Amino acid sequence: MPANNINGVNGTPRRMATLEQLFQPVQPRSEDTYNKVTVVGTGQVGMAAVFSMLTQGVTTNIAMVDVMEDKLKGEMMDLQHGSAFMKNARIQASTDYAVSAGSKICVVTAGVRQREGESRLDLVQRNTDVLKIIIPQLVKYSPDAVFVIASNPVDILTYVTWKISGLPKHRVIGSGTNLDSARFRYLLSEKLHVAATSCHGYIIGEHGDSSVPVWSGVNVAGVRLSDLNAKIGTDSDPENWQQLHDMVVKSAYEVIKLKGYTSWAIGLSLAQLTRAILSNANSVHAVSTYLKGEHGIDEDVFLSLPCVLGSNGVSDVIRQPLTEKELGQLRKSAKLMSQVQSGIHY
Amino acid sequence: MPANNINGVNGTPRRMATLEQLFQPVQPRSEDTYNKVTVVGTGQVGMAAVFSMLTQGVTTNIAMVDVMEDKLKGEMMDLQHGSAFMKNARIQASTDYAVSAGSKICVVTAGVRQREGESRLDLVQRNTDVLKIIIPQLVKYSPDAVFVIASNPVDILTYVTWKISGLPKHRVIGSGTNLDSARFRYLLSEKLHVAATSCHGYIIGEHGDSSVPVWSGVNVAGVRLSDLNAKIGTDSDPENWQQLHDMVVKSAYEVIKLKGYTSWAIGLSLAQLTRAILSNANSVHAVSTYLKGEHGIDEDVFLSLPCVLGSNGVSDVIRQPLTEKELGQLRKSAKLMSQVQSGIHY
Amino acid sequence: MPANNINGVNGTPRRMATLEQLFQPVQPRSEDTYNKVTVVGTGQVGMAAVFSMLTQGVTTNIAMVDVMEDKLKGEMMDLQHGSAFMKNARIQASTDYAVSAGSKICVVTAGVRQREGESRLDLVQRNTDVLKIIIPQLVKYSPDAVFVIASNPVDILTYVTWKISGLPKHRVIGSGTNLDSARFRYLLSEKLHVAATSCHGYIIGEHGDSSVPVWSGVNVAGVRLSDLNAKIGTDSDPENWQQLHDMVVKSAYEVIKLKGYTSWAIGLSLAQLTRAILSNANSVHAVSTYLKGEHGIDEDVFLSLPCVLGSNGVSDVIRQPLTEKELGQLRKSAKLMSQVQSGIHY
Amino acid sequence: MPANNINGVNGTPRRMATLEQLFQPVQPRSEDTYNKVTVVGTGQVGMAAVFSMLTQGVTTNIAMVDVMEDKLKGEMMDLQHGSAFMKNARIQASTDYAVSAGSKICVVTAGVRQREGESRLDLVQRNTDVLKIIIPQLVKYSPDAVFVIASNPVDILTYVTWKISGLPKHRVIGSGTNLDSARFRYLLSEKLHVAATSCHGYIIGEHGDSSVPVWSGVNVAGVRLSDLNAKIGTDSDPENWQQLHDMVVKSAYEVIKLKGYTSWAIGLSLAQLTRAILSNANSVHAVSTYLKGEHGIDEDVFLSLPCVLGSNGVSDVIRQPLTEKELGQLRKSAKLMSQVQSGIHY
Repeated sequence: MPANNINGVNGTPRRMATLEQLFQPVQPRSEDTYNKVTVVGTGQVGMAAVFSMLTQGVTTNIAMVDVMEDKLKGEMMDLQHGSAFMKNARIQASTDYAVSAGSKICVVTAGVRQREGESRLDLVQRNTDVLKIIIPQLVKYSPDAVFVIASNPVDILTYVTWKISGLPKHRVIGSGTNLDSARFRYLLSEKLHVAATSCHGYIIGEHGDSSVPVWSGVNVAGVRLSDLNAKIGTDSDPENWQQLHDMVVKSAYEVIKLKGYTSWAIGLSLAQLTRAILSNANSVHAVSTYLKGEHGIDEDVFLSLPCVLGSNGVSDVIRQPLTEKELGQLRKSAKLMSQVQSGIHY
Repeated sequence: MPANNINGVNGTPRRMATLEQLFQPVQPRSEDTYNKVTVVGTGQVGMAAVFSMLTQGVTTNIAMVDVMEDKLKGEMMDLQHGSAFMKNARIQASTDYAVSAGSKICVVTAGVRQREGESRLDLVQRNTDVLKIIIPQLVKYSPDAVFVIASNPVDILTYVTWKISGLPKHRVIGSGTNLDSARFRYLLSEKLHVAATSCHGYIIGEHGDSSVPVWSGVNVAGVRLSDLNAKIGTDSDPENWQQLHDMVVKSAYEVIKLKGYTSWAIGLSLAQLTRAILSNANSVHAVSTYLKGEHGIDEDVFLSLPCVLGSNGVSDVIRQPLTEKELGQLRKSAKLMSQVQSGIHY
Repeated sequence: MPANNINGVNGTPRRMATLEQLFQPVQPRSEDTYNKVTVVGTGQVGMAAVFSMLTQGVTTNIAMVDVMEDKLKGEMMDLQHGSAFMKNARIQASTDYAVSAGSKICVVTAGVRQREGESRLDLVQRNTDVLKIIIPQLVKYSPDAVFVIASNPVDILTYVTWKISGLPKHRVIGSGTNLDSARFRYLLSEKLHVAATSCHGYIIGEHGDSSVPVWSGVNVAGVRLSDLNAKIGTDSDPENWQQLHDMVVKSAYEVIKLKGYTSWAIGLSLAQLTRAILSNANSVHAVSTYLKGEHGIDEDVFLSLPCVLGSNGVSDVIRQPLTEKELGQLRKSAKLMSQVQSGIHY
Repeated sequence: MPANNINGVNGTPRRMATLEQLFQPVQPRSEDTYNKVTVVGTGQVGMAAVFSMLTQGVTTNIAMVDVMEDKLKGEMMDLQHGSAFMKNARIQASTDYAVSAGSKICVVTAGVRQREGESRLDLVQRNTDVLKIIIPQLVKYSPDAVFVIASNPVDILTYVTWKISGLPKHRVIGSGTNLDSARFRYLLSEKLHVAATSCHGYIIGEHGDSSVPVWSGVNVAGVRLSDLNAKIGTDSDPENWQQLHDMVVKSAYEVIKLKGYTSWAIGLSLAQLTRAILSNANSVHAVSTYLKGEHGIDEDVFLSLPCVLGSNGVSDVIRQPLTEKELGQLRKSAKLMSQVQSGIHY
């Protein structure tokens, strides 16, 4: 336990008379970290992620790091007070990264938050400066961890994390369009009146405004909607399914406008990715991954494609057949990313 | 579905060609409400309760009501976007109470929030005025529901709800000291280095400053700490266990000071009570209940005692043997509640 | 509680002195049945289903019915002894169907078990005679329940249940090829090294020997394997994917040969269907449903197609585009079912 | 993966054309074993334990070992077919202990089963001979694992395992009276009409006929029943609560007589202990532990007392104040164990 662990009760009580009468010690308790997850940043996104992981039983060992000591301590205490309602999770927090030691996964949600109307790209340099402090500390204490980045603009900041960390590319993942895809599936479920988990479809590419819905793969029970409606996703579709993607793009802006920020859905998305990695599930999720060589892209960029996730991070990228239009959008994003990246100062 | 249901996608799509090709209709989908829970108030407490219930699988059918339409819609959308990560829960929200129709449980978190340093008692009249609007609407649409009140000062507002609602006393419950007890068990677990779920103890009476820790019942594996340390909980205890209760009392204030509000632990507490009632568990929880006739109290008040909770609400109150000191504290709280209550205008 | 409820401890204890001191009664405990599930048959399949439902939290209220009183009581006691490890579920059992009263779902696993090498069709008449006793009793005590049939041959026995019960067709469902599809997805996951939950594909038609794999819909992340390998599922496929379907067909026989019966996978399949119905999920599952009018079938038969399941049972059948070969197999099964059905004596 | 892993589909497919088109490999999938549990013995107890662990999410990585190759393969296949219904767990089985490599916990359920009417003590030598084969193999492949023994007579066989293994005493645990305590709590819950999880009480000592109920600790909400009824648990108690302990003792015999064996409750008990250890919960459970030095016992024996369980096994034994009668029973059991143990041939 790090020296400045913020703890309501002193961590190692003197063995007082009552305890001596109650316990016959056999051996010291251990500090096992086999499923430890560190979350950096205790804003709305970080806390929704932590709370999703704890309530869904994704991990029983959470460390939180932030620079705002009061906020951090308040969140830690509030969660600890709920211990008896969860599965006795170990919840630690500190401004000192030593608290993160031995994590299997490091989730980074820190960074300046996107303001109403602000483009994701404007945030890059400010957040790069933040990552330059965070990432080396995390790598120092958890050299074998998989890194999941949620800070925005997520694709570029995943690239930045990869550069700063020196880690192999399969161990640096951006939360990417896993959330966009979930929003898409929810909207499909509303239109089809079928459970979201039975509506299949992926949004790939850049998280946000220029994301790409892969209409060719949208299906229910293996029935492609594009086989029923050849014009689906195009401007000339009389049923205007394209509107669903428009709504996905507007979603983040709309939720931010309405409640001030987004939290629950991105928190759940991060918990899902964390569970896939921790449990070595080999399940498929649209996450931001190193793209060079895929789909004719030769820039050094991270964008979302469906990936197989396991305990080492990304083991495979799924090769979706894309239309020329989809490829065009993807390559355009790649060029844009590359351009922005070239202006970053490290 | 109520007319003004705030929904991102029109609830009842025209059957367009694609849908007609995809589905062979057999019968209309149903609107089953067998485990429906309504939460009134989408502030930090209400949302933590809703999110705890959804992520822990307590219910798959949530309705939210609030007067702030933007905030309400933002929270609803954010949760709906996470549908694919949860168990396909049905999530509705409206400023119109019709959305709550047929609920098994109504959880009320609405009301003015306690400010840093503000006593709970100061909030009474303002929140009574709020409940006069909320409660009749909930009773109208869910006449058979169990009501769980979390608004503060919770004991008095549970009484107020009982008066306004005209419901039998076993169907009106205050979240009471279920949270104080959880905080107490967490602090015991830290001191004893034993899981919170294995540290047993109840805090009863008034939620907050004048709550009463029942030291005689505090035990690990049935071993009473008071049998090991006769002075436990008193001023003359050299080990100063009393400090744990002091810390519980200060907890709410400290968390509010640090992060601005409390949310996670109270949300989890409400989810636990909701699960006990929905699943007819007959489990024991310290909740605010009608106390007249218990422990020599003859005022018409609600205070927390351990209660057996099932699908009809409170079936039994557990009769803990209390010391004279504990009885004195309880009766003092009862008198204070009664006094405040006599000044409320309906 | 029915008179002959088999209970280790008398259900309604006299209020003895100790209880009177412990409890202050407020109101009688209730017998809520809002998520009650009855399982008929406590053989390997029935017990695996019950245990899956309890451990996965699908329901907290189970009633079991069987004619073998000893076995039934033994299973009930064994489960009840585990109550403290589960979520305080209510577990009842009786040879009298009164114990099933008010169920939301009735799962029928009773019947003579398929012997090694025995065709499913040989079992029909014997099991029809069993259903003639069971079904009217279940309908009497739970007239609004959805019926899920798992007894084999399941497609014909679902038809038989529908005939005997007089229920609307959407409330009578056979477990059908939900299990075959799960086996198929597991085998795909082994071949692809991707999680079973990320391998999508349906087996439809008759549960068992003449089931039909819909290769056109088999996909990972929306990428159809048939787009990568046009000959997939055919005799001329050099990669011999057809073998996976052969293995699915042989699975039941092989497991029966190896361990004597199948239990876990069918139990989990039944728990999944029960959850979908109880929680009104509108999720898609391959279950045996009334088929007349679909895919050019004009016989009065039940076979599996992907269906949308909610609290009323089947709301829609998904219309998969099928190849001529697949249609041919389906129609052949329909004719065979119809032929067998015409020979049943009621 | 060990050479003779029994697998339906070849574990490492040649990269065929379809796979090459579908996947862009990034790095090999890993074989993480961070929460791996091995269960030896696939009889009713072993399988109920495995199924409880998988359905309750205790682990996602199970290895099973048995000498009966057919049975073992059948159980493995049946579980694997259910993968899509669980959380993509990894399920392996082999007659070769190499399959168990790297386990965090080894659960031993193998051994000759107790026959109706047979005393537990008669089984000792036969099962010792079995353990002499099993234990060294498990220790070889998982030298850091915690061992949980469920084979009967469990207290003596836990001692035998400790002797054979050479492991420190805190890493060898018998399932002991965790099950007896659960049965006791269920019977209390029936008599009190309160949830089993709210009825607290421990049975300690020898698992089975001479187990000891600690009446002084039996409580609901911290209210000791012995404070309400001073004669509780004695022959002169007019309310005859002692009967509950008699019923616990008879339970195993009765269930075996009725259904032929016990499975669900012991399976759930083992899953609970496994979860406590894997998640480093520090929760308290009555398990068979090395007793010399406790309660005036100076024999080299294992009997059940409430223990704090974490990732290293037992960290502390809880010192319950016992009556002279209880101490007498415990010491008598210890002498009996010691006597039997002295006759074992290794």
